[in-house]
Amino acid sequence: MKIETVLSPALFPFLPGGTEGKQVVVIDILRATTTMCVALDRGCEEMVAVAKVEEALEYRPEGYLLAGEREGHKVEGFDFGNSPQEYDAEKVAGKKIVITTTNGTQALSMSRGAEKVWVSSFYNLRATVDAILAIGLPVVMFCSGWKNRFNLEDTLFAGALVEMLAQGGFEIEDDASRAALYLWHEAKSDLTGFLENANHVQRFKSMHTESDLEVCLRMDIGNRAILADYGDEQVGCVLKAWGA
Amino acid sequence: MKIETVLSPALFPFLPGGTEGKQVVVIDILRATTTMCVALDRGCEEMVAVAKVEEALEYRPEGYLLAGEREGHKVEGFDFGNSPQEYDAEKVAGKKIVITTTNGTQALSMSRGAEKVWVSSFYNLRATVDAILAIGLPVVMFCSGWKNRFNLEDTLFAGALVEMLAQGGFEIEDDASRAALYLWHEAKSDLTGFLENANHVQRFKSMHTESDLEVCLRMDIGNRAILADYGDEQVGCVLKAWGA
Repeated sequence: MKIETVLSPALFPFLPGGTEGKQVVVIDILRATTTMCVALDRGCEEMVAVAKVEEALEYRPEGYLLAGEREGHKVEGFDFGNSPQEYDAEKVAGKKIVITTTNGTQALSMSRGAEKVWVSSFYNLRATVDAILAIGLPVVMFCSGWKNRFNLEDTLFAGALVEMLAQGGFEIEDDASRAALYLWHEAKSDLTGFLENANHVQRFKSMHTESDLEVCLRMDIGNRAILADYGDEQVGCVLKAWGA
Repeated sequence: MKIETVLSPALFPFLPGGTEGKQVVVIDILRATTTMCVALDRGCEEMVAVAKVEEALEYRPEGYLLAGEREGHKVEGFDFGNSPQEYDAEKVAGKKIVITTTNGTQALSMSRGAEKVWVSSFYNLRATVDAILAIGLPVVMFCSGWKNRFNLEDTLFAGALVEMLAQGGFEIEDDASRAALYLWHEAKSDLTGFLENANHVQRFKSMHTESDLEVCLRMDIGNRAILADYGDEQVGCVLKAWGA
């Protein structure tokens, strides 16, 4: 089984053979996919991811809470922003939430058509690896980046997945996966230190959400893989724990 | 002065602020920019780079020799392919050559509009760094990649430039430059070994042009930086040694 990596949504159209018959792992470490994994782990009953703010608004009459950010800021009038720390169990347990973010939900939207689409983060790394190995189809790491630009944190997480999947017998297929793996090897003993100068981390600091960084880099807190189900929905997808 | 890196032509449109007022270094290690540096160093009087085969053909009546490849193979009826080893002094000295390649000349074509555009390779690494430092404008490493896909060899060369320019006082601006630098640190003590599994190198081996790899990774053989001059040309650009 082959491993490929897409380092930015702008590179997605150039993936050889597209995503047909493959598993895709959507990665937006700071912070969309981390937040999704956390919210579902804390009892959120249903989470819908959509690409646009207007699409999210359509869910309000149906009783959904609204979540999301643009440019790193909570959308005005929404119930939640995009910080995993906002999603306490008492706020999300039993609730239905619709979420839209600058980068992560766009990547999710582009992944429609793959055989399986996972949403992953350091929060549920091991669980995601186990699910991918169980499904046993070729896999694509899809880094959401920042506005189509390459970023380090998503690439490092892709490298962590590449390492564990290669140990599980998957084969590295492209240079992007190789680069991600090398960077992960370099970074993993001190992830926070390695990321200290990364663009997004600097942006974080300037926006006073620095404590999110620590939360987003914590590993294997949750033990469930998160699957995106596109069903017959015309907009968005429903996120749920695999096997739940 | 800032350093930015574009890891694939598909990412070029997302470079913040574009290339206005910046220097761009076009990189296609295997093999276009290496071949260009070699041909000019061996006495080629004038080298014109164009994006399309049809554009190259228009130069024949003016006495130009034709050079180039598509999919790694010499274009049928052309005088030269894209192997630097074809460009012996006796074949190129005093000659005018027009060249078109799958990836490198496309990146050159996209770079029109920058303040200065350099064509570089390991062959003239140090000379390129000296030229960039002398001009003293912000710089963009532009990796040509392979059909819009990320590749390791161009990224490693970008990392080598980033390292030397940072030592010369330039500041690393983006995560792509950081990643390139980390990968270069990892690779530089055994570049050939590091690249052994890279996609393009495997492609090379399958096409029996493996000896090109060694030539393309030799460092600082030439001592002249190569500038692309777009002039008022509607098509292509003229490559020449800087200061010549």
